[in-house]
Amino acid sequence: MASNTLGTVFKVTSFGESHGPAIGVVIDGCKAGIPFDESFISRQLQRRRPGQSGLTTNRKEDEKFSVISGVFEGKTTGAPVCILIPNTDARPEDYEAMKNVFRPSHADYTYHTKYGVRDYRGGGRSSARVTAGWVAAGAFAQSVLAQMGIVIQAYVSQVGHIKISKPYTELNLSEIETSAVRCPDKEAAKAMETYIEQLKSQGNSTGGMVSCVIKNCPTGLGEPLFDKFQANLAKAMFSINAVKGFEYGSGFEGAGMTGEQHNDEFMSAQGKITTRTNFSGGIQGGISNGNDIYMRVAFKPVATIAAAQRSLNTDGEEVTLEAKGRHDPCVVPRAVPIVESMAAIVIYDHLLMAGI
Amino acid sequence: MASNTLGTVFKVTSFGESHGPAIGVVIDGCKAGIPFDESFISRQLQRRRPGQSGLTTNRKEDEKFSVISGVFEGKTTGAPVCILIPNTDARPEDYEAMKNVFRPSHADYTYHTKYGVRDYRGGGRSSARVTAGWVAAGAFAQSVLAQMGIVIQAYVSQVGHIKISKPYTELNLSEIETSAVRCPDKEAAKAMETYIEQLKSQGNSTGGMVSCVIKNCPTGLGEPLFDKFQANLAKAMFSINAVKGFEYGSGFEGAGMTGEQHNDEFMSAQGKITTRTNFSGGIQGGISNGNDIYMRVAFKPVATIAAAQRSLNTDGEEVTLEAKGRHDPCVVPRAVPIVESMAAIVIYDHLLMAGI
Amino acid sequence: MASNTLGTVFKVTSFGESHGPAIGVVIDGCKAGIPFDESFISRQLQRRRPGQSGLTTNRKEDEKFSVISGVFEGKTTGAPVCILIPNTDARPEDYEAMKNVFRPSHADYTYHTKYGVRDYRGGGRSSARVTAGWVAAGAFAQSVLAQMGIVIQAYVSQVGHIKISKPYTELNLSEIETSAVRCPDKEAAKAMETYIEQLKSQGNSTGGMVSCVIKNCPTGLGEPLFDKFQANLAKAMFSINAVKGFEYGSGFEGAGMTGEQHNDEFMSAQGKITTRTNFSGGIQGGISNGNDIYMRVAFKPVATIAAAQRSLNTDGEEVTLEAKGRHDPCVVPRAVPIVESMAAIVIYDHLLMAGI
Amino acid sequence: MASNTLGTVFKVTSFGESHGPAIGVVIDGCKAGIPFDESFISRQLQRRRPGQSGLTTNRKEDEKFSVISGVFEGKTTGAPVCILIPNTDARPEDYEAMKNVFRPSHADYTYHTKYGVRDYRGGGRSSARVTAGWVAAGAFAQSVLAQMGIVIQAYVSQVGHIKISKPYTELNLSEIETSAVRCPDKEAAKAMETYIEQLKSQGNSTGGMVSCVIKNCPTGLGEPLFDKFQANLAKAMFSINAVKGFEYGSGFEGAGMTGEQHNDEFMSAQGKITTRTNFSGGIQGGISNGNDIYMRVAFKPVATIAAAQRSLNTDGEEVTLEAKGRHDPCVVPRAVPIVESMAAIVIYDHLLMAGI
Repeated sequence: MASNTLGTVFKVTSFGESHGPAIGVVIDGCKAGIPFDESFISRQLQRRRPGQSGLTTNRKEDEKFSVISGVFEGKTTGAPVCILIPNTDARPEDYEAMKNVFRPSHADYTYHTKYGVRDYRGGGRSSARVTAGWVAAGAFAQSVLAQMGIVIQAYVSQVGHIKISKPYTELNLSEIETSAVRCPDKEAAKAMETYIEQLKSQGNSTGGMVSCVIKNCPTGLGEPLFDKFQANLAKAMFSINAVKGFEYGSGFEGAGMTGEQHNDEFMSAQGKITTRTNFSGGIQGGISNGNDIYMRVAFKPVATIAAAQRSLNTDGEEVTLEAKGRHDPCVVPRAVPIVESMAAIVIYDHLLMAGI
Repeated sequence: MASNTLGTVFKVTSFGESHGPAIGVVIDGCKAGIPFDESFISRQLQRRRPGQSGLTTNRKEDEKFSVISGVFEGKTTGAPVCILIPNTDARPEDYEAMKNVFRPSHADYTYHTKYGVRDYRGGGRSSARVTAGWVAAGAFAQSVLAQMGIVIQAYVSQVGHIKISKPYTELNLSEIETSAVRCPDKEAAKAMETYIEQLKSQGNSTGGMVSCVIKNCPTGLGEPLFDKFQANLAKAMFSINAVKGFEYGSGFEGAGMTGEQHNDEFMSAQGKITTRTNFSGGIQGGISNGNDIYMRVAFKPVATIAAAQRSLNTDGEEVTLEAKGRHDPCVVPRAVPIVESMAAIVIYDHLLMAGI
Repeated sequence: MASNTLGTVFKVTSFGESHGPAIGVVIDGCKAGIPFDESFISRQLQRRRPGQSGLTTNRKEDEKFSVISGVFEGKTTGAPVCILIPNTDARPEDYEAMKNVFRPSHADYTYHTKYGVRDYRGGGRSSARVTAGWVAAGAFAQSVLAQMGIVIQAYVSQVGHIKISKPYTELNLSEIETSAVRCPDKEAAKAMETYIEQLKSQGNSTGGMVSCVIKNCPTGLGEPLFDKFQANLAKAMFSINAVKGFEYGSGFEGAGMTGEQHNDEFMSAQGKITTRTNFSGGIQGGISNGNDIYMRVAFKPVATIAAAQRSLNTDGEEVTLEAKGRHDPCVVPRAVPIVESMAAIVIYDHLLMAGI
Repeated sequence: MASNTLGTVFKVTSFGESHGPAIGVVIDGCKAGIPFDESFISRQLQRRRPGQSGLTTNRKEDEKFSVISGVFEGKTTGAPVCILIPNTDARPEDYEAMKNVFRPSHADYTYHTKYGVRDYRGGGRSSARVTAGWVAAGAFAQSVLAQMGIVIQAYVSQVGHIKISKPYTELNLSEIETSAVRCPDKEAAKAMETYIEQLKSQGNSTGGMVSCVIKNCPTGLGEPLFDKFQANLAKAMFSINAVKGFEYGSGFEGAGMTGEQHNDEFMSAQGKITTRTNFSGGIQGGISNGNDIYMRVAFKPVATIAAAQRSLNTDGEEVTLEAKGRHDPCVVPRAVPIVESMAAIVIYDHLLMAGI
């Protein structure tokens, strides 16, 4: 039972493969009369685009997109919005040699087992290429949220062994874009870039972390018991390729704390109810409480590496694999707009679910 | 837009409040002709039951349940199964004093803001009491999976600062039930119990961690792109009260690794395709690959503590709160069957989605 | 893939069998703070109740119900509302002889084929008994709609060959309840009752028609393209046992008309936009336009009759069936509140979908 | 809450407007490995195509389509299939004069009221043009069903006052395509064509009826209680523009019959269980019983006519409307493949829901 739609009211249906004519999305559930901000969508697609810096894959996509439906005279009409993003720099020939081989820690084996038929070119449907469509949809949502004052900011907080230990409140989030690696701590950013370049030259790859902060989120987002806000944020993040962990608020550290340490006492501030601390991460009982929402998303290292690896082919025979195909040594810089987009889709969907 | 149903084909609808006449579930999507194992459901409810040991709350519920529909002559009929679990030891009077106060790190404030009307007695709908219904539904699923050889085992791997550092492969999972804290490492279990008792005597509480392992899961579970297996496991776990983090496979550690370290090379073993390592945690591209699935779920400390806390009432006035109501010093021992149940619901739902 | 939930935002999940301990519903998607009008629910259940007049089956159910959840101090809380209606006059022994026989034009054969296991007592899950739960849920919706001025009135417009030919606009709908058959035309009502009594004495049965009018429905209900208002009304009506046809507005007669005859010209009346005629039946392009919505629902004759009938048993052998079990000679008088309830569920669901 | 997806497992998402660059569908839920029969899709699109005969509108669309995703080397991959059909003969200028006028019995007024923003060109999203996408999706389903021996045949059974009174069993359904009007009764076909031509010359229009027969449908399709087979067929048919009534089996005539007349006695025939009569229309208790399924769909007359009509503009002022834009005098000949396609989508969806 296939499932390529995310969201309950704001529904994003993804289609397309890495090396087909185009990838895209149909967004169903846009309210009518909303300005459709193509330039913000372009900007986010540029941030996700391969080939944007020396830290990424060499695949070159300009990510020009067409709006097929649902927008009339610059505004949404309430009809579904279909966005098409052509694949212009596909190189299927790179994958010919691997069509019968299961690349380690890729989806080749599981897709082969599940579907039998498989578009092996560049990972086909399992490729992170499809997240371009998600970013287009998410950027639309993010532009609507921005109009309401809701700000979503993601940044790289870890690359391999290099981590920012400071909480987000001590970082200058306006500096995220000042480094190619999208880390707002300049020193860490430098070290991360050096590390990624080193791995790139070795044909190796690394994992990393994206942190994300949502400010000015209204209270009331989240529909208990089975559309809790954090549950849908988690689901959306785990839909992104390579994600292995998600936490919000105190997260895994919360497991080591006591109730006296962890409880967020309520207080009044400027006539608004808030809390003295925010270990809850802005969500209580599955519903946003108006405080900052913050979360961390862990990414495994990119599975495509240059080193020879042992594997099996579709006949179950042992083979040695030497990967072709262009790839990133580290996905987290490009994952920053993806995390923002998934957060935006979930937030906007919850706003609409809550009737806000 | 309320949302009290979990699952796509195997659909579990939860209803009920902590201090109403009963809590329950309607399970829609059971195949017909499946033996309905009431004794296993009872056993799991006993493991979740309050008052089961000195480590838990004193609320006493025997968790006798009635099957209202969907079972005929011991077997499911394909019609929805309604299970009712009466609340027998409710003490609403304990909550009278707190009806207008927002307990820190509880759902009082967010429910009040979102719904206006609120059944404040014992947390009402936001109480973990409702998970008894989930456990009933999950135990049914687990009993069906057990018939297929699929084994789900959860255990406590951390209580406060006390952690098991060994991987699950080095633990004897048959010993989980030998300690009240449900930790298979005897030494750690002892330390955890001592720590919990100490906190209990102080009226304090602690967070903790539940680890969960699924063995003999068939390949093919997971429906990319937006019902990836890990995404639905994550969503289900984040639906549980007090959960702050989730990871599977290499998890957060994967962020610090390189591709050469992390890639799981394929190999043949006894004619079956498997991998040399299992950093993937049994899931690749959102689809199970037949290897063990393992994951960790982080719980924050219980929010109800004895210490006086500052808070606000529904008029926004500062108050000092001294909690009444019975509560656990640490939820993770009782969360073990909840985690198993949520995993079982997700796995069974995915089996049915995959047509297996 | 079982499906026992109706509605998108206002979601009614049905459970229970004719001869189990109880039938019921879980209503998910009630807004919080809505008065829960038990007396109107009771009234509608009485109108659907077996044994209410000499025209119906002799089964006696007082239809006392319990509200298990979701209502606190007389108001909805936003949590799911579970309503239980016990089965008090079940007589499973009546069905013992028929447990292996397929009753003609009943669901026995198709349930047997699809599910294998079957609660044969009184039709089990396929019994119209389950519509008591729908009426409870629908009556709640209807009571909310009534507060908004939306009035739903159904009545019997045909029993066998006896039809009311007048349009609803020429009937006095306040007289529906003055006859046991629920027909507002006194003469026709009389003839219908005589006909039903005659069939009852012969052990035969008849089909009939329920017409339904919705007044004061706001504009904007309906979500094209695949939740058009008429499409969901049709779906809900065809969910009712024994329904064979549905039409709205001009209906089947519209097929014989020309555009010049049929088009509803727009006009202003008291500052409101309306139409000179209403062949559209209050819906255009799948969306309500503020005019009266009217529709007709055709019911086949009750399948349980006294006459000996040829059939097969579960071994495929020919048998002669002489039905036991209590039954109605004509369902349409009791179907009146069912049609109203299904309409109410659809309308309320669409109001919530439209954010009205 | 927009809703542009039809189906539960086989999910068809529609997008596009009459005068945008293209209309299309995303089909999610295709099994992998199914041959993708482009020629059958083309054939059905040709049957729906405007301008195919003198009986239809003059708009000329060749209905060439592109398959953007989900098909690899001629077979489905399990990934969503996106089909794009460009609009090549759009004439937006025809609608300029009507942009502020509500055309009688069109969706102009309700779309205007509901959405505010409206693509008025050719009806925009409310145009029957969008059914081309449904036909593409339905034709794919129909080609899969044909492989399983399931045959869906629709035909015109009424145009205005001209009706075929014979049941489908007495018609030669292989002759449907021999007349431009798609009526298998030659005499009636002739009369219908003459009538349509006459109305066309007068700038008037007429309603009509499409009958549809499904043969070799397996038992077990339908998921009670709220995805009964007939309920989803009805919903799908009422999603088609201009549909005012739907009946299956005995339909509205069943309301006038007695149980003794109407009951379908079971019998054995060639070792298969069947019934002596088929008033049930192949469905009992919401589940197919293996007999022929037959139904009738009533269409109102086309709303666009040449005669001057009174109406209002968006300022509420009275205007006289003289329609421009190309249109059909009668839609039912072109509705034949649409009805087939909707039936095919529902049947295939139910096959997958039932796990067949």
